[in-house]
Amino acid sequence: MNYGQSFSNVTKVMKSSLIRELVASTKNIPGLISFAGGFPAPATFPKELLAKLYQEVVSTQGSEVLQYGASSGDSQLIKELIKWEGFDLDPSEVLVTIGSTNAIYNYTRSLINPGDVILVEAPTFLGSLVVFDALQAEIQSIPIDNDGLDLNQLESTVKKLRAAGKNIKFLYTIPDFHNPGGVSMSLQRRRELIAYADRENLAILEDNPYGRLRFEGEHLPTLYRVMKEEFPGTNVVSETVTFSKILGAGMRMAFIKSDKEMISKMESWQQKINVTPDCVSQRVTARFLAEGHMEGHLKMISAYYKPFLDQMLKSLETHMPAEVKWTKPQGGIFLWMELPERMNADEIFHQAAAKKVSFIPGSKFYPEGQEKFNTLRLNFSYSSLEQIEEGIKRLGELLKAL
Amino acid sequence: MNYGQSFSNVTKVMKSSLIRELVASTKNIPGLISFAGGFPAPATFPKELLAKLYQEVVSTQGSEVLQYGASSGDSQLIKELIKWEGFDLDPSEVLVTIGSTNAIYNYTRSLINPGDVILVEAPTFLGSLVVFDALQAEIQSIPIDNDGLDLNQLESTVKKLRAAGKNIKFLYTIPDFHNPGGVSMSLQRRRELIAYADRENLAILEDNPYGRLRFEGEHLPTLYRVMKEEFPGTNVVSETVTFSKILGAGMRMAFIKSDKEMISKMESWQQKINVTPDCVSQRVTARFLAEGHMEGHLKMISAYYKPFLDQMLKSLETHMPAEVKWTKPQGGIFLWMELPERMNADEIFHQAAAKKVSFIPGSKFYPEGQEKFNTLRLNFSYSSLEQIEEGIKRLGELLKAL
Repeated sequence: MNYGQSFSNVTKVMKSSLIRELVASTKNIPGLISFAGGFPAPATFPKELLAKLYQEVVSTQGSEVLQYGASSGDSQLIKELIKWEGFDLDPSEVLVTIGSTNAIYNYTRSLINPGDVILVEAPTFLGSLVVFDALQAEIQSIPIDNDGLDLNQLESTVKKLRAAGKNIKFLYTIPDFHNPGGVSMSLQRRRELIAYADRENLAILEDNPYGRLRFEGEHLPTLYRVMKEEFPGTNVVSETVTFSKILGAGMRMAFIKSDKEMISKMESWQQKINVTPDCVSQRVTARFLAEGHMEGHLKMISAYYKPFLDQMLKSLETHMPAEVKWTKPQGGIFLWMELPERMNADEIFHQAAAKKVSFIPGSKFYPEGQEKFNTLRLNFSYSSLEQIEEGIKRLGELLKAL
Repeated sequence: MNYGQSFSNVTKVMKSSLIRELVASTKNIPGLISFAGGFPAPATFPKELLAKLYQEVVSTQGSEVLQYGASSGDSQLIKELIKWEGFDLDPSEVLVTIGSTNAIYNYTRSLINPGDVILVEAPTFLGSLVVFDALQAEIQSIPIDNDGLDLNQLESTVKKLRAAGKNIKFLYTIPDFHNPGGVSMSLQRRRELIAYADRENLAILEDNPYGRLRFEGEHLPTLYRVMKEEFPGTNVVSETVTFSKILGAGMRMAFIKSDKEMISKMESWQQKINVTPDCVSQRVTARFLAEGHMEGHLKMISAYYKPFLDQMLKSLETHMPAEVKWTKPQGGIFLWMELPERMNADEIFHQAAAKKVSFIPGSKFYPEGQEKFNTLRLNFSYSSLEQIEEGIKRLGELLKAL
């Protein structure tokens, strides 16, 4: 039979991840230097320690962790997550998920009817855009500046959309080391955003994959934490935190903190989609936190990545033409670059591949029809220092020639 | 804000797992003997071996398994799964999933528009019914007899529904050690079903959690295997196999074999919902298979469970009133019981809880409005031999008194 005719309507028009396709298209170019992916450096994986913890957990707690677990997540892990966060939090406000993607999917699934609006930053994480799209949301983007989301633009967009009868379900934001934007939202902006969202009954989904990857400067409290500590009685913010960049992406470990009723609905979806996350990896993560390894580990990762960021900034300074601008982040794993308006990074992507250097064209990080084509994203966590210098040199030469 | 008002329409009416609620309702009864759950016996978990494999895999292949993996699944695991199946299969016909629930969700999500019809056996696995319901399918049930699905009833139902303009997307079936029905589909019936489905362009989703848990009698090839070996050119059957009952449910490991185009769409959903299954547990499962542990392990489990099944059959023979009937399975972990028509197992559930014995009322295993109330399911994999004798005695006394 021809399954193509039987696919559900959403499945028929569903987009695959353009990043994966782009990365795949350059996969077999020998000598290619890629700044395209978002992979953490394997050198930062605590292999031996995790190997020991997996062994201990399965050997001594196997009867429990090899058995079916709770859909809300391993209670020992939830206890450790709450301790790690370090502020007042009830277990019923936490759901363990299979990476942040799973949290974002369950959150969106719980709220969105086809045609409902999700507000996103422009640019924003492509992985989330394809989820929102697959769940048939209408996506509207709000610009960011050096302090994060532009609140004036947010207000006027909300007003306009609501006046047009649109049902805005939530705002999706990445306040820390924005992917791909590279900026962090200022504390002042965070407070203003929460006050506004509370006033306007606007739910906020805060995506926090890099917040703990700060190499320098002062740590900023997440939106969720600011809400909990400074806006008692408000429940507008939910925050998803992943271990993919700070422990091991392959373990698919993340959690979301949210309103109890939301947690209960997301858990109900989890039961129907996956039953539970991997119980072995959950308990291993719990042990890693309980034994106090995380703080030192995060220091090690930050110290490891900083020279790569520094090298990339230095190489950009040396090799880029004067008209090109880029962000100078204090953490995370990405830089965001703006080319002169007349340039199109979608076209440059192919010319760059011919010169054996790769990146992600910025247009992929905007909802369809809202793209900015003169932008691109550079990753610095997966190449050697020499590759960074050589790759940026190749890219600089290409841009100068254009 | 009040999230309850913001939930999507599906989320607002979504059912939670009634089994979980029923099991929870009897959780705090001291001395309760429960035949309600579907948990494997922890004594069957190969704890020490898995502990060693987890240690080895993370220690020697950590750079790979702690990194992001392929959404279709670990290529080493897929290779081992194909070897394990032992018949001609292309890697593009296999998707690794987070338990069978994840396979069933992705399969259903790929095919179902709201209102499309899914055919199920009556009774059938409740966990799948709630998935189909959450994805807004119309569920129609077909009776089973001692040889499995009733094909005459299937034909007349398909005819009737199609004549009424209904779009039947697939048939969901559990041919081996049916949960909760306890029967297995005969080989003859399997052949007839595939021939019929091929003729009628009816997709079949075969759920196979217990097929390898046969304690006696001859092993039957799965529908998928019969299709591959005897119906070349046909692609109507997809089969999902879980490791939850034969390795460790907490590892959330399963796979689905299907048409390539279907695999590609299910993988696309996987990217948006979870990105990938746990890469550590995938590689551990691959090593478990590659090192040849599975065959002996399955023999051990079957030998372990058989006395529990035998004890339950013996206790039933001793304690049940003459009007009560039950299945005599050759494997799996469940029995199905039929009470006289006038009895209602939903009511007896509460009376039994007062007598400190528990089961799942059979009505939970039928689509809403299509229930049979004089049935119940008994599990024999999670109680001791003494508990089985004592629990069946309590239940028998209660039924005699009624």
